[in-house]
Amino acid sequence: MGGDFGPCVTVPAALQALASNPNLYLLLVGDPTTLTPLLSKVDSSLSSRLEIVPAETVIAGDARPSQAIRASRGSSMRIALELIKEGRAQACVSAGNTGALMGLAKLLLKPVDGIERPALVTVLPHQQHGKTVVLDLGANVECDSTMLVQFAVMGAVMAEEVLGLSNPRVALLNIGEEESKGLNNIREAAARLKATSSINYIGYLEGNELLTGKTDVMVCDGFVGNVTLKTMEGVVRMFLSLLKSSSGSDRRQKQSWWLKLLGRWLQKRLSRRFGHLNPDHYNGACLLGLRGTVIKSHGAANSNAFAVAIEQAVQTVQRQIPERIAARLTSVLPKSD
Amino acid sequence: MGGDFGPCVTVPAALQALASNPNLYLLLVGDPTTLTPLLSKVDSSLSSRLEIVPAETVIAGDARPSQAIRASRGSSMRIALELIKEGRAQACVSAGNTGALMGLAKLLLKPVDGIERPALVTVLPHQQHGKTVVLDLGANVECDSTMLVQFAVMGAVMAEEVLGLSNPRVALLNIGEEESKGLNNIREAAARLKATSSINYIGYLEGNELLTGKTDVMVCDGFVGNVTLKTMEGVVRMFLSLLKSSSGSDRRQKQSWWLKLLGRWLQKRLSRRFGHLNPDHYNGACLLGLRGTVIKSHGAANSNAFAVAIEQAVQTVQRQIPERIAARLTSVLPKSD
Repeated sequence: MGGDFGPCVTVPAALQALASNPNLYLLLVGDPTTLTPLLSKVDSSLSSRLEIVPAETVIAGDARPSQAIRASRGSSMRIALELIKEGRAQACVSAGNTGALMGLAKLLLKPVDGIERPALVTVLPHQQHGKTVVLDLGANVECDSTMLVQFAVMGAVMAEEVLGLSNPRVALLNIGEEESKGLNNIREAAARLKATSSINYIGYLEGNELLTGKTDVMVCDGFVGNVTLKTMEGVVRMFLSLLKSSSGSDRRQKQSWWLKLLGRWLQKRLSRRFGHLNPDHYNGACLLGLRGTVIKSHGAANSNAFAVAIEQAVQTVQRQIPERIAARLTSVLPKSD
Repeated sequence: MGGDFGPCVTVPAALQALASNPNLYLLLVGDPTTLTPLLSKVDSSLSSRLEIVPAETVIAGDARPSQAIRASRGSSMRIALELIKEGRAQACVSAGNTGALMGLAKLLLKPVDGIERPALVTVLPHQQHGKTVVLDLGANVECDSTMLVQFAVMGAVMAEEVLGLSNPRVALLNIGEEESKGLNNIREAAARLKATSSINYIGYLEGNELLTGKTDVMVCDGFVGNVTLKTMEGVVRMFLSLLKSSSGSDRRQKQSWWLKLLGRWLQKRLSRRFGHLNPDHYNGACLLGLRGTVIKSHGAANSNAFAVAIEQAVQTVQRQIPERIAARLTSVLPKSD
């Protein structure tokens, strides 16, 4: 029910995901009177792997998380998370209120031992044809140094388990590379990471290093991570739209057929080259550090992008990411009191 | 003497600026034994408008600002600022330690009435062929709501005076557009801006709106502003380098002459289209809110980019930006106690 567009996006995305994953079974949690009409013309090969789980209320996107959580009984978000707790579902995908999702998930699914607060994490493509794990992307708007250190550990484990890297490089996002730069919590986290032998901490990196592949894991607080990721998306979308309008204006001008053809060929080539950077292709941040898989989709996701988030949930479950992270964390993190 | 490359970049940039501005007179503040050899082969038409002002020490880029300021007597940065105070210079351009520059400038040049802390500001091109004033870009890593409100006022005045806009739209950078989102200082600033009738406050905008032209002024704290600007630069540079390497690989393949020619034509066209986004073309952030013109260049600036920062100083002096802002602020800002 969540996100900027609700079921208009999530239901077509669900059908798309079912069509491409023959082993997928989906529970659509929400208002049946809204959902049922959207499913009326669905082929039985898909509808047989689809079930509506009724929910009476919806948590508003602009609700204060604390209030929303108190009044969450019977809401689609809470029921979806309860399905994981009851073992009826293996993962939950939501485009709804990030703060509420984070709070409810923590309440119902409990964090892994050693983790105080789960973090939103995503994997971004970088210039060296590899990928970078980035967290936190908005689950925690304020972070102390302990949280940043825990994010670093979770990010490193994720880089090992998901990207297959050994001894992944971990950096803190900061406004300069010198030790004296930045905020207190970052400097404290840096000192502690330096003293943690199991983490390959490489120091501070600045925003312009996010896509250069200098690090395998980039750690920051949720406010900065969210702004940074969205800024990046904004620039990428602007470039993609400029590329498109470039060829559009070609068409408006009078041109010989071969020039048109070549223009189109070149545009195709460029789109292929930049397509992997399209934010829609990596929609879906994983709420890391929980005993269960929760994927947060961009609120503004279209149905293609939301289908990518569902696919992420499938991958996370199949690769047993939460279990692997829990297992690794117990060996890496200091025991909590 | 400052920046990642020192006089190797700043001296050629100074000569470039002198060549393109026949009315420009430059004082190079620094170590004469380093500077003099770099000027040995300079044409007299330029060297006659160039003077070395000796300075014994240089503030290190990684020095803690508070320490650097205490030990600043005789340093190139301090002497450059003192030249403004003494009326011997009208502006100072530096690629050095941001914190030290900000602290020393405040100490020596004093903020305008009503401004507690100056802010670093720049003007970014946006998708609607206009420009957006963005501040703070790193002068203040932590900001309370009062500072954010003052930045909003300064940004609005700058948009009026520099971009020629009447009643410019002002937004706060946040992680969501709903009122409940974000950090306390941002929410407080929002409430106060809403109550300020002389400011056309339009609400929160997210990182992806930075280049869409939805606002004329975007306000954030210096940490977030710095990370955001650098992230943007990183993405733009990656795109520009991908465009370049795209055409490079064309050349390596065997192609007919007309395909090569057309490829090159299209690349030129794209470069023209994207060139205005090249971070080198808008290097130089103005330290706004002082009784004098101080321009901070990117530490990693090349000589073209540093020349742009010098040009910014020229423009700022010629348009009397500090004076205009001071005049406008007295009418807009509430009187301080």
